[in-house]
Amino acid sequence: MSQDLDQLAISTIRLLSVDSVDKAQSGHPGAPLGLAPAAHAVWQKMKFNPKDTNWINRDRFILSNGHACALLYSLLVLYGYDLTVEDLKQFRQLNSKTPGHPEALDVPGCEVTTGPLGQGISNAVGLAMAQKQFGATYNKPDHKISDSYTYAFLGDGCLMEGVASETCSLAGHLQLNNLIAFWDDNHISIDGNTNVAFTEDVMLRFKAYGWHLIEIAEGDTDLDAIAKAIDEAKKVEDKPTLIRLTTTIGFGSLAQGTHGVHGAPLKADDIKQLKESMGFNPEETFVIPKEVTDYLKKHVEENQKVQEDWKKLFESYKQKYPELGAELQRRLDGKLPENWSDALPTYSPSDSAVATRKLSETVLTKILPVIPEIIGGSADLTGSNLTRAAGSVDFQPPATGLGDYSGRYIRYGVREHGMGAIMNGIAAFGANYKNYGGTFLNFVSYGAGAVRLSALSHHPVIWVATHDSIGLGEDGPTHQPIETLAHLRAIPNLSVWRPADGNETSAAYLQAIESTSTPSIIALTRQNLPQLEGSSIEKAAKGGYTLVKQDKPDVIIVSSGSEVSISADAAKKLESEGFKAGVVSMPDFLTFDKQPLDYRLSVLPDGVPIMSVEVMSSFGWSKYSHEQFGLNRFGASGKGPEIYKFFEFTPEGVADRAAKTIQFYKGKPLLSPLNRAF
Amino acid sequence: MSQDLDQLAISTIRLLSVDSVDKAQSGHPGAPLGLAPAAHAVWQKMKFNPKDTNWINRDRFILSNGHACALLYSLLVLYGYDLTVEDLKQFRQLNSKTPGHPEALDVPGCEVTTGPLGQGISNAVGLAMAQKQFGATYNKPDHKISDSYTYAFLGDGCLMEGVASETCSLAGHLQLNNLIAFWDDNHISIDGNTNVAFTEDVMLRFKAYGWHLIEIAEGDTDLDAIAKAIDEAKKVEDKPTLIRLTTTIGFGSLAQGTHGVHGAPLKADDIKQLKESMGFNPEETFVIPKEVTDYLKKHVEENQKVQEDWKKLFESYKQKYPELGAELQRRLDGKLPENWSDALPTYSPSDSAVATRKLSETVLTKILPVIPEIIGGSADLTGSNLTRAAGSVDFQPPATGLGDYSGRYIRYGVREHGMGAIMNGIAAFGANYKNYGGTFLNFVSYGAGAVRLSALSHHPVIWVATHDSIGLGEDGPTHQPIETLAHLRAIPNLSVWRPADGNETSAAYLQAIESTSTPSIIALTRQNLPQLEGSSIEKAAKGGYTLVKQDKPDVIIVSSGSEVSISADAAKKLESEGFKAGVVSMPDFLTFDKQPLDYRLSVLPDGVPIMSVEVMSSFGWSKYSHEQFGLNRFGASGKGPEIYKFFEFTPEGVADRAAKTIQFYKGKPLLSPLNRAF
Repeated sequence: MSQDLDQLAISTIRLLSVDSVDKAQSGHPGAPLGLAPAAHAVWQKMKFNPKDTNWINRDRFILSNGHACALLYSLLVLYGYDLTVEDLKQFRQLNSKTPGHPEALDVPGCEVTTGPLGQGISNAVGLAMAQKQFGATYNKPDHKISDSYTYAFLGDGCLMEGVASETCSLAGHLQLNNLIAFWDDNHISIDGNTNVAFTEDVMLRFKAYGWHLIEIAEGDTDLDAIAKAIDEAKKVEDKPTLIRLTTTIGFGSLAQGTHGVHGAPLKADDIKQLKESMGFNPEETFVIPKEVTDYLKKHVEENQKVQEDWKKLFESYKQKYPELGAELQRRLDGKLPENWSDALPTYSPSDSAVATRKLSETVLTKILPVIPEIIGGSADLTGSNLTRAAGSVDFQPPATGLGDYSGRYIRYGVREHGMGAIMNGIAAFGANYKNYGGTFLNFVSYGAGAVRLSALSHHPVIWVATHDSIGLGEDGPTHQPIETLAHLRAIPNLSVWRPADGNETSAAYLQAIESTSTPSIIALTRQNLPQLEGSSIEKAAKGGYTLVKQDKPDVIIVSSGSEVSISADAAKKLESEGFKAGVVSMPDFLTFDKQPLDYRLSVLPDGVPIMSVEVMSSFGWSKYSHEQFGLNRFGASGKGPEIYKFFEFTPEGVADRAAKTIQFYKGKPLLSPLNRAF
Repeated sequence: MSQDLDQLAISTIRLLSVDSVDKAQSGHPGAPLGLAPAAHAVWQKMKFNPKDTNWINRDRFILSNGHACALLYSLLVLYGYDLTVEDLKQFRQLNSKTPGHPEALDVPGCEVTTGPLGQGISNAVGLAMAQKQFGATYNKPDHKISDSYTYAFLGDGCLMEGVASETCSLAGHLQLNNLIAFWDDNHISIDGNTNVAFTEDVMLRFKAYGWHLIEIAEGDTDLDAIAKAIDEAKKVEDKPTLIRLTTTIGFGSLAQGTHGVHGAPLKADDIKQLKESMGFNPEETFVIPKEVTDYLKKHVEENQKVQEDWKKLFESYKQKYPELGAELQRRLDGKLPENWSDALPTYSPSDSAVATRKLSETVLTKILPVIPEIIGGSADLTGSNLTRAAGSVDFQPPATGLGDYSGRYIRYGVREHGMGAIMNGIAAFGANYKNYGGTFLNFVSYGAGAVRLSALSHHPVIWVATHDSIGLGEDGPTHQPIETLAHLRAIPNLSVWRPADGNETSAAYLQAIESTSTPSIIALTRQNLPQLEGSSIEKAAKGGYTLVKQDKPDVIIVSSGSEVSISADAAKKLESEGFKAGVVSMPDFLTFDKQPLDYRLSVLPDGVPIMSVEVMSSFGWSKYSHEQFGLNRFGASGKGPEIYKFFEFTPEGVADRAAKTIQFYKGKPLLSPLNRAF
């Protein structure tokens, strides 16, 4: 390292960040000023190629304190990613490539979307897990295909969030020595000094989690210590590393060390003195000294050589291990194995009634051997979620004797939010990973913060969400979802499958596994459901379809999951009463909405009263129906079938309401709810 | 203590629990068997009156591992609460007083609803905080009105959940020495041995949080150690205490120490040997030896004397401190100060445009001096949420020099889920506490697990949820709620206020503070909103009302919050185009739904096309409207007004869609969406 050039690079990072925030008159200058030295030191240690941001063996850099994104954007510009000073001038402006928090979809070189605190470090844990699994699966003694590190910056806010506690505890258990995290210990959060709410001993806590610990007292200036800390971390064999980096928020600003510098632009005279103190011309903005460009370019060029060597290694790998090599190439190309979906089971009405959670287990058992990139686990509900195919190996540090890193079954512990954030990290690793996590549908809510980021960031993760209604029975209202499906269906770009039988369960997995940019929730029953007459994978894969067709029906009952067979029975009952009732199964709103209008109108046509039936909040069902039969109160503890009966979710209860619907709309012209004014 | 009687009482607790689970053929016998000795020892130390479960100075017992509820129910029966052996025989049956998890509303003597892991211990932190605040407010050197303790049992699952990490870290910071928690260290969770996912050093972690630590190696048998641990904990002056209680899950069962005994009834021969080994007749069930009844009765009678003394103390207090005494009596009676709502500000259209978060601050500033039982805080967003009235004192341990325990402003740190669970605990304390917590609306989702328990358990807590839309601007999609209101509105018994101006903000607080059993979210803008012509506290307090009335309107625009004034402007624009547009403001669906149908139909009548306007997911709005103008995608980072314009949430954009709505429904007879078939 050249001290002068390093210092100049750091000053450049600092001032680009300050100028970005100043130009926008919005943003967070404090953390970039404090963290620029560490960021520079870390990036000088990282391997990456700005021109090939998908290189599977790159090191990952995660800015968990995403509000400091001006720092990241400055680095990306300086290292020659597809981001320019012009983009920095558009910081936080509409439709720019430099949004107010790092959006992985918008910002070239940004690994994961961060900002909601605690998510980034948790994604980093997922990335490190994926690297371990990937390396253990493909590395050979003579061909180390994967040896990348994940670096994360996190602030006090991330450390206070429970999701980070969950994932950092798991990271310690999993002995993820490929994870190197920097805690920006600047004593400041939005409410002021962290001593108002956060006086725990963070290092001791991470010791308790089983992390390796390093302290750097002079994080504002001590580049050598940072570089040495990284070297030390890389030597640790069985622990992730937390580096406590004591910094001064807003370093160099007149307001340094106060929360005043956290989330507001610096004042003009402050910027002036800052630039002067760094030897920059205070009249100029967005300055990148040529020496800095040249200096950083050297690192990039070295890295490009590293990548060239890796490419050669991979070619040799494909020669020596043709089968694994081809599989790896396929995965890197983002392709699933050909004809994988042939493995999906199909059912006919004569097959026995089975809980959809059990049907899900059958799917997993069939497809796991076919698709090596599927890995998954459960938040300590394995025996209930049925997420572990027989004969699976656990993903565990070999030293535990409980599995190894090539294992594909993850024991998440009771950590739903952490699981959600880790799943996003695994998906972000690349290599076509398709990863799932099991919990009760109701407890997907614990992970809501991560679920919306899956959808926003286009991570095609899968929640295996069993015990999906009051049908779970005795566990009662605390465990019975009511609002959950409405919540999830209202999230853009999230598929929320609620299959009604075996074919629909296969359809849900078909779409969830094929998905490249949409996450899926698969809501599954605890109780047995019959195999439906008229279902098929192909039909269900459209998201909604006519299960019981009627010529000129008096009513159409649209339903999902466990209520579809009840609705079909209700239709039979109505027939005996002289009414013609069609039945529509609607396993996923989002997929149905993507079908052409003429198809959708063939399912939910004009002129027929449509009634929805679902044993939870009816909120949102009026999108597809004129009347809604739902459960707009909390559930009850009791035997599942008795609760269904109590709330009248029986063929009789449904038929009764359908008859009232027919009566109510008699003679009234009716539009399909799908017909809209705009 | 009498060793024989203690042992007999413990055996009775164990066997009542086992019989309950066996009778139901559903439930969790393992934890009750392991924890019965500790539960017995703790209850023998607690002060409470089974006949007066609301006594404000009772000790609280929280079963955070709620699945062990057979243990709690057995204790409640044995100590003479309004629960009988007949109720135990109805364990986990529909409409019983002994549901599958402890439901505070259903089970006499159950303090808080638990089951979702991590919530109970977090509620316990809230209870302890409330006690501290209550004691500091009312205790006098000669009149210690409040000196109760909160005891909590928690399992490994609770410790893995992030919400518990958040709250236990805060409990350490707050030095809550009135909180005594027992960790049931039985090494077993649903996935088997906890070593598959949970190998952190829990005690070291709690040391890091600043807790006092005690270890009991023989938790199955060592009653003395448990009693001594409680005595020791009570002597600690500045720390909560965690007692590690090493137990054997399913103690005494043939399957003890395995996860097989966690969540399934014991086998018949196992129950037989268990009863025999304890000297009980294996042919009998639900046996309560008279010696046990008599023994436990003694403790109750002693406690009743303690309560009598307390009552005398309170009478004397009222004499000596008439003002505080009257206030305290009022609070214990669950009454708000008379005419408190006179303090609520009102506005007229000539008043300036103000952000509703700022209007909320004004409300808090006005009502906090009038209602001493309001306490609240923010999850490290004080300056953004504007939740801290000027001159407030922070709720802090006096030793920190940052406030004192009588302080009414809570620094939660970045811990939304923990805040939600603590709020429930504070509400559960009683004494009419009305407590609020601030965060961005989008991050209420982090606390979803606690929010649904507020609604289920009828805790009238208040979330001050600012930055309620894309209007927050530059922070971008990670911070902009889209699905959030749909999610919250789908939760039963939850008010979700989104006021449009000052009068509506006052109305939201009026209803939220008056509420005794419904929690409230108050969604507030970052940006300024004009004071509306036609709004009033009275009208808005109905949840929905006609803001712009039209005789025979061509269209009605129904809207909420920041889009109401845009809709009113759109109505003016439509008027200039020859259309008559009525405007309805709908600040809270739940409150509106509670109004009589004729009122609701006067607001949303038959025969008029109704269009909703809200700048987030339109999911659920079809409940009140034929057409929906919403934002069914993620937002964008940019200046708030520019984003509104980009997505066409402008008078022009609204008017355009309203005109299309008028056109589309022309000549078509239309029912109000409120008219339902059943």
